[in-house]
Parts: sequence; C-alpha cells; structure tokens
Amino acid sequence: MKLKATCTLSVTAASDCPLVAMLRPRSGQSQWIISDRYDLEPWVPVTEFVDSYGNLCQRLIVPQGRMRIAVEVTMKVPAQIEVATYAPRTLVTDMPADVLHYLLQSRYCPSDKMQSQAWDIVGNALPGYPQVAKICSWIHDNLHYRYGVSSSTTDALDTLEHGAGVCRDFAHVGITLCRSMQIPARMVVGYLHGLQPMDLHAWFEAFVGGRWYTFDATQAEPRGGRIVLAYGHDAADVAFISDYGMQPLRIDDMFVDVVAV
Amino acid sequence: MKLKATCTLSVTAASDCPLVAMLRPRSGQSQWIISDRYDLEPWVPVTEFVDSYGNLCQRLIVPQGRMRIAVEVTMKVPAQIEVATYAPRTLVTDMPADVLHYLLQSRYCPSDKMQSQAWDIVGNALPGYPQVAKICSWIHDNLHYRYGVSSSTTDALDTLEHGAGVCRDFAHVGITLCRSMQIPARMVVGYLHGLQPMDLHAWFEAFVGGRWYTFDATQAEPRGGRIVLAYGHDAADVAFISDYGMQPLRIDDMFVDVVAV
Amino acid sequence: MKLKATCTLSVTAASDCPLVAMLRPRSGQSQWIISDRYDLEPWVPVTEFVDSYGNLCQRLIVPQGRMRIAVEVTMKVPAQIEVATYAPRTLVTDMPADVLHYLLQSRYCPSDKMQSQAWDIVGNALPGYPQVAKICSWIHDNLHYRYGVSSSTTDALDTLEHGAGVCRDFAHVGITLCRSMQIPARMVVGYLHGLQPMDLHAWFEAFVGGRWYTFDATQAEPRGGRIVLAYGHDAADVAFISDYGMQPLRIDDMFVDVVAV
Amino acid sequence: MKLKATCTLSVTAASDCPLVAMLRPRSGQSQWIISDRYDLEPWVPVTEFVDSYGNLCQRLIVPQGRMRIAVEVTMKVPAQIEVATYAPRTLVTDMPADVLHYLLQSRYCPSDKMQSQAWDIVGNALPGYPQVAKICSWIHDNLHYRYGVSSSTTDALDTLEHGAGVCRDFAHVGITLCRSMQIPARMVVGYLHGLQPMDLHAWFEAFVGGRWYTFDATQAEPRGGRIVLAYGHDAADVAFISDYGMQPLRIDDMFVDVVAV
Repeated sequence: MKLKATCTLSVTAASDCPLVAMLRPRSGQSQWIISDRYDLEPWVPVTEFVDSYGNLCQRLIVPQGRMRIAVEVTMKVPAQIEVATYAPRTLVTDMPADVLHYLLQSRYCPSDKMQSQAWDIVGNALPGYPQVAKICSWIHDNLHYRYGVSSSTTDALDTLEHGAGVCRDFAHVGITLCRSMQIPARMVVGYLHGLQPMDLHAWFEAFVGGRWYTFDATQAEPRGGRIVLAYGHDAADVAFISDYGMQPLRIDDMFVDVVAV
Repeated sequence: MKLKATCTLSVTAASDCPLVAMLRPRSGQSQWIISDRYDLEPWVPVTEFVDSYGNLCQRLIVPQGRMRIAVEVTMKVPAQIEVATYAPRTLVTDMPADVLHYLLQSRYCPSDKMQSQAWDIVGNALPGYPQVAKICSWIHDNLHYRYGVSSSTTDALDTLEHGAGVCRDFAHVGITLCRSMQIPARMVVGYLHGLQPMDLHAWFEAFVGGRWYTFDATQAEPRGGRIVLAYGHDAADVAFISDYGMQPLRIDDMFVDVVAV
Repeated sequence: MKLKATCTLSVTAASDCPLVAMLRPRSGQSQWIISDRYDLEPWVPVTEFVDSYGNLCQRLIVPQGRMRIAVEVTMKVPAQIEVATYAPRTLVTDMPADVLHYLLQSRYCPSDKMQSQAWDIVGNALPGYPQVAKICSWIHDNLHYRYGVSSSTTDALDTLEHGAGVCRDFAHVGITLCRSMQIPARMVVGYLHGLQPMDLHAWFEAFVGGRWYTFDATQAEPRGGRIVLAYGHDAADVAFISDYGMQPLRIDDMFVDVVAV
Repeated sequence: MKLKATCTLSVTAASDCPLVAMLRPRSGQSQWIISDRYDLEPWVPVTEFVDSYGNLCQRLIVPQGRMRIAVEVTMKVPAQIEVATYAPRTLVTDMPADVLHYLLQSRYCPSDKMQSQAWDIVGNALPGYPQVAKICSWIHDNLHYRYGVSSSTTDALDTLEHGAGVCRDFAHVGITLCRSMQIPARMVVGYLHGLQPMDLHAWFEAFVGGRWYTFDATQAEPRGGRIVLAYGHDAADVAFISDYGMQPLRIDDMFVDVVAV
C-alpha cells in the first residue's frame, strides 16, 4: 500500500541549540520512498549522517527563537506484516554477526535483570516466533496503555511494576523479555497507519527463523501499514530529536498524519 | 540556491533485466535534500543499499517490456563552488585513511601510465590547488568537447590521444593527471544548473588543503549549482544505471531538467 | 614502552556453548601489535568479526567439557598517557558524527538520571578536561575500591549508593557523570601494567579538546602502560566473554600477566 | 593445517617515504591467526586502518636510510580448498549487495573490452563453477608462466596478447573473463604453501553457488594451504606495499617462507 506520512514540529530555542533529528526514513527491504520532503523554517544549514544502526540522522543548530521542521514522505509499504507462526528459534551459532549485539542488555531493556519472568510468560510456547507472539499477547493483555505513567527515564522493569505505559514502554518490555530468552530484539520507531490517536509510534522486531519479524504489543492483531524511521537497541538510540543546548529545546507543537494514498 | 532536478528515463527490456541505478542523491556536507521523488511505472519491488563509496544504489528487475523511471529532487546547494587559490598540497602522511584509495590507478584513470605528462602540464604552478587548477585549464584549452569520439571503453590515455571527448572523458583526464602527481582525485556525477545541452554531468574532485574541492574541466570558470548523485574512482563505479540482463537494456529516451526554484 | 600481556582462561561447558570473546587487541592510533598469539585447546573452528564499535570479536562453540583459551600479545604503547590540563570542552556542534552516540545514556550509565550531581561535583572546574579530571579525582576520593559490593547488574547509580565498587563500576560512574554534562564518554577494557592485583582492567575515555583522552578513576595519577582490548558504551558492550549456552559457562581459572619487555 | 609464513623486507628510502603496507592477515571464515608478529627496524610510529575491502593496512613513514620490515604469522587454514564441481551460476538478482561491485571492470581487468572471448573459452561448460573451472584450466594450458614479460602496468588484455605472465597476470585474466560473463570475481594476494619458487602469491575468487570459491590458474589442480593477506578488485587495490615518497622506495631484499608446523 502507499502511505503518505507528515510530521510537523514547532520548537522554541532559548538560545542556539544543536539538534540531531531522525526524521528521514530510508528505503530498505520492505519500504520504498516514492517521495520525501524535509523542510526547515527558517532555513539553516543542515547535514546528514548515518549512525551505527544505519539510520539517517540530521544535524543542525536551531537558532534562538522558533523553528518549524516539516517532513513528509510517501512510501510503498506492505499492507500486511509478515507473520511466521512456526518460525523456529535461531541458534546463537547461526546468527549473523551484526545481530548478536541485539542480545545485549541496554538502558531501557535491562534483560540481565529479567531472566525468570520471561520463561513464566512464554510457558510452553514453541521456541521462536510462537514465544515472541506469546510475549506480545501477554503484554497486550496485562499492561494498560495509559499516558502519564512513564517518563523518559522509565525502563522495562519500571513498566512491569507500573503495569502500564505507552507504546515505547510496551516495546521495551517486549524487547527485554525476548533478550532474556536469547532472542535478539530491537526497537523500531516510525509511523503506523490508523493509529489512534495519531502520533509517532514505537514497536519492536525480534530475530527468529533467520530474519527480523515485526511485533507490536500495543495491537491486538499483527498489522501492516508501517513506515520505519529508525532502529536501535532501545529508546536511547532512536529519539526523533535529541537537543544539546544550554537549555532544553521546547516543543510547542507536533502534528503527525498518516493517510493511504 | 535551490535547484529542482528531474530525470526521466524510458527503457525497454527484451526479458527480465536486473538493474542497479544510482539516481538518488544524499544530503551531505554541501547539499541538502528538501524534497525527493523516485517513481517507477509499472511498479516493481525495489530495494536500496549503500555502496562502499557511500552512494545510494537502487536494485530492481525491469520486467520484460517498457519501464519509466522518474526521479525529481529539490535541493539546497551552494550557488558558488568553493575556490581556494592557494590551498597547498596535502602530504600523503596527513591524508585521512579513506582518502588514500583515491591515489590509486583505476579502470579509466591509469595514472600508473601517465607520470611525466602531469608534470609537463602543471609546470611551475604552486603545489596543491594551483596545480589542479592548471590541469583543469589545460584540459579546457587543449581538448575539444565533442560527442562521438569516445565510447564506454575510452580511458584517459585514449582521450589524450583523441584530443577530444565529453564531460566524463575530461573528468577522467583530470583525475588521472592529479593522481599521477599524488593528489587524490575522484569522479563525481550529478546535475549542473545551466548546462548546455542539459544532461547528466560528470566532473571531479581533488583533495588539497586538507579537503575535497570541486573541479570541472568542461567549464571555463569555477561554477556552482551542482547536485551530486554519486562518487567513485571513475566512471566504472558511478554508472547511473548498470543492467545485468541476458540482453542489454535499451534506453529509449532520457530527459534531464535542472531549474532554479 | 613494550608490554607483553598474557591472559589464560580455563572454562567448563556443561554442554556445547556458543561464545563471543573480545580478547584480541587491534593496532590503532596509540598502540601497535608487535606480536600476538591466540590459542585454543582443544582446537575448534573460530571466526572473527568487527563489531559496530570497531572491536575484534571471536566466535566459537566451546564443546562440552573443558577448554583453555590462551592469548598473548606484545605491544608498543605509550609509557605516559596524554594529559591536556586545559583542553576545552568540545561543543556538540563540533563533534564528529561518530562521537555523538557517546552522549547517550546506556545500560550501566543512566546519565538521564544523574543531571544535577555532576554539576555539584565539578564545581567551578573549567569546562572540558579540567571537569573530567575533577570527576576522576572525586571518584577516587569518595568511592572505595572494594570487591563483592557490585555484581553484573550494578549500574552507576547503584555504585554511588553503595559508595564502593571495582574498576568497572568506577568507570561507569565517570562515564555517567561526563555524559550528564554533555561530554561524550566511553568504556575501555584492557590491560594496565603494574595493576595490583593483576587482572583485566576497565577505565574510560572522554572527548574533550577535539579528541579522546584516557581517564582512570582507580588511579591517583594519570598513568600509561595500557593495552586497549575493546571500546563500548559501557560494560554491556565489552564483556571479554559472552556465553550463550543452555547453562552458563563456568570460568574455572583466569590468569592475567603484564610485563614490560 | 597449520602454516607458518614469514616475510622479511629490506628497503631503502632516499628521503622520508610514506608507506602503506598490507602485510597483516585477518582471521576470517576460513583462516585463523594463532600467532602473528610484525616488527620494524628501526622502530617508527605505525598505525593501522581497515580499507573499504576489509583489509588491514599499515601506515608509516620509512625514514631516510634502510628499514627492515619483518612479519610472521602462524595460521590454521584448510589443507584443501573447497571445490563445488556443480555449483550453479548465482543470478545477479540473488547476489548480496556487496558482491555486485565485483562485476565491474577495473584497472587491470577491463572486462568491458573482453566480452566475446570468455564465451569462446567456456564453450558448453555448465553455468557457474564449471565455467570458472574451465577458464582456469584454459589459462593454465594456454598462457606461459614466465617472468619479465609483464610489468606493473600490464592488464589482462596485454597478458592475453603476450601469451605469458606471472601469478598476478593469470589472476587478472581469470577475473576479467569471469566478470565479462557476469560472474563476480576478485583478486586475492597471500601465501601458498609449497609454491616454487617461494614468493608472495596472487590468485582469484569467483562468486558462484551463492558464495566465493578459490581459483588459481597457476596450478594444475585445486590446492589448499593458503593464507589470504588482502582482497581487492585487482592488483591496484592489493599492493603489499605502496610508497608515496619523492623518490620510489627501493626494495633491497625480500624473503618469503611458508612451512607447515
């Protein structure tokens, strides 16, 4: 399907503020950029680099005052995500070298502290995709989707304790449970068609059956219509903007829209 | 300045034909993609990868019959290219590791065969930028810009012998002369605003004064308004399309347009 | 100076156990491998890859039973580490793209939770190297070097609470404090000549004055004689061995020796 | 099998001479460094970087006068190279992105000029491995192994004309013929156990049946006991030393030895 996604951001900087944004998707295996727009107002010099996860990152300095960042992308994406009900566990021995890193604990996914819980949750699900699917449905059934419970410092353990969180927290819990069972898992941020209320979204991918599969514990059923903006270990790596000024950048307004075209 | 560049390509494949294209620019130090469009008709699955030079490459299979590839990009680029009349030679010792490779001979730039000629041409120009500028003006003054003299197998030595060629040939001669004097040089393909007749264009960059500078021997004066599509050692690395079918892909039509917006 | 470092490891696997080791240093800016040995007994197939931090990683399967891994390296390293008493803070704007990532919070260095503390510690130290030096001496003066207080799940906040830890914990605290002040910092593991008792060691580097400098809060004074084995965000990235078997690998014995030669 | 290879090089520089060497192998899929030594006399600072092919490159400045470079490596390598008599052609569509580049013409392998010849040579050999094997035996049977015919500027076409050359020339011809049939091929330099007379050696690899296979047209039969030092498009990329001084570096003496241990 073809999706057109728009994200418009109004920010205010008390003084010149260096910014790194991750707002430009890349064409890859399962998504193709038909058209793409990235505009700044006022115009300032901006450069782009690729980080160690392969994400495009834009660097600029927000000058004192207000700035508007407007991105728009039209992409060809799968209407359905791939589901592989019986995809088996991939042995560590068979994992590509660049996948191994996604077995490690990270800031918001302290899998080193969550060994036993994962096994309780998956129960006797078959090794591999079925285990991850079980983790997903467990999160969906046992955590409440609620704003205001979590903050930027909330990790997966905190979320399990709170029993609630938002998409980012659900993804962290899913990733942590996977890793604690030696299933590589990574964070994804992007757009999801039909999300209510519309916003930037976060979900995760797990490596089973020899490849990455998409999982989203905020949804009752697997669902396509996704545009990936960035991959990382967890939310620390994939902030859509990171500001490095003397004072924090203020986000005045943010508007996200995703429509089928 | 803001440029809008369009390239539309109609091709015919006698049978399914794998294709690698390099038609999507990247944002970088001196160019920023404000908007970008890349469309295929009929639609076929396409993926994108980054080659070892950092170029975006699109892979697809042109199905039997006709296909139209249409790309359009609006970019912020410098109206003037930087000129550094006295930038000194960079010692090999001081070159970044990823620049060293551009000292080596390559398919169309056999600098191992052109040692003495370079020194005759640069004469007593000061080491560094002045030498490359001298090479550029020598090419501009001594080679005729003429279609039909060169083919896809023509290298820099052939062009010197013919005394004529097109932009790609001029760039090859410039690169080869630079390298034979231990100045790293690389091929650039892209768009040039105001080019007559309008087409995809090729020029080169040389590494002096600690960075890459743009040179274009087809022009009497340094001139900005450029959009870079790809970098490489020479034309072998930066073909805007490479086809790998049983029969060669036929290009029926190609339309390039670059306007200031 | 020339150092010869030896690390011999005896492990027991209850069943075949996939292993990733980081026990082979690389030659780089400030260390040169004169000779290097890496032996396994019994011999099993082993491959090597480079992770996203540039570290060499060895992959193998420890067969059921005992295995001995013996590495030995003779390196040319600086006898003194470089100290730049007045190196200024590097503005985020001026940091190379691959340094930015070391500003982010990570598993053991939750800098997002430690903003105010850093400023209390550095007080009126000048921005840059002096701040990091102050952090280092504060850690050295205020934390006790003691075994048994920390475990593999201990992060920098835990260590501050305990008031004690080992080299890895000291490094985590240093890194976290630096990052919370927008100074990029990274974990280093390796060998230190003269360490008492001898063992693998951990310290950190901070990016000030436009480059990385070495800091070691376990030492009263800056001290050279170091061989770097691996860099990472924190201990999660640089475990000298990571095992992925059904049962954890047992380390029966580990012997480290570093002598000047 | 275990091989111990030694290469000792004595050079003389008329004045300080920047040097890039490729004399340190890497552990990889099929070779493992058990021990490694790399010594310089006199000692000068030296750094190491990884080029775009993944090769280790050593940079140093040879001071005016004589220098001795001594490398020694003990490696575990396959006693037999893998032969896959019926491995089929890999379709371009199925090639990994990083393999595509080895389809392109290069300095010494102008495959764009040698289309028809390849088909004459392979005749009715089955597509894939059998074609490359046919190319290999054709070279072995039709070209004379003879010193003094070729120089550093000799490409594959020159060698076919001369009807003779050395290992590097044989490899260039093999690579060029493969590429002209859309089989990716790359240059390999390294050590071969039992080579007569002993020297550094060059051969090639072709990508068929979904992976790289080793071919050596200087040998009547496939033969193992190889240590790979470097990969590249052709000899331009894999010179064991490249010197960039005012005057060329003089090689006074070079000694290579490879023994089974």
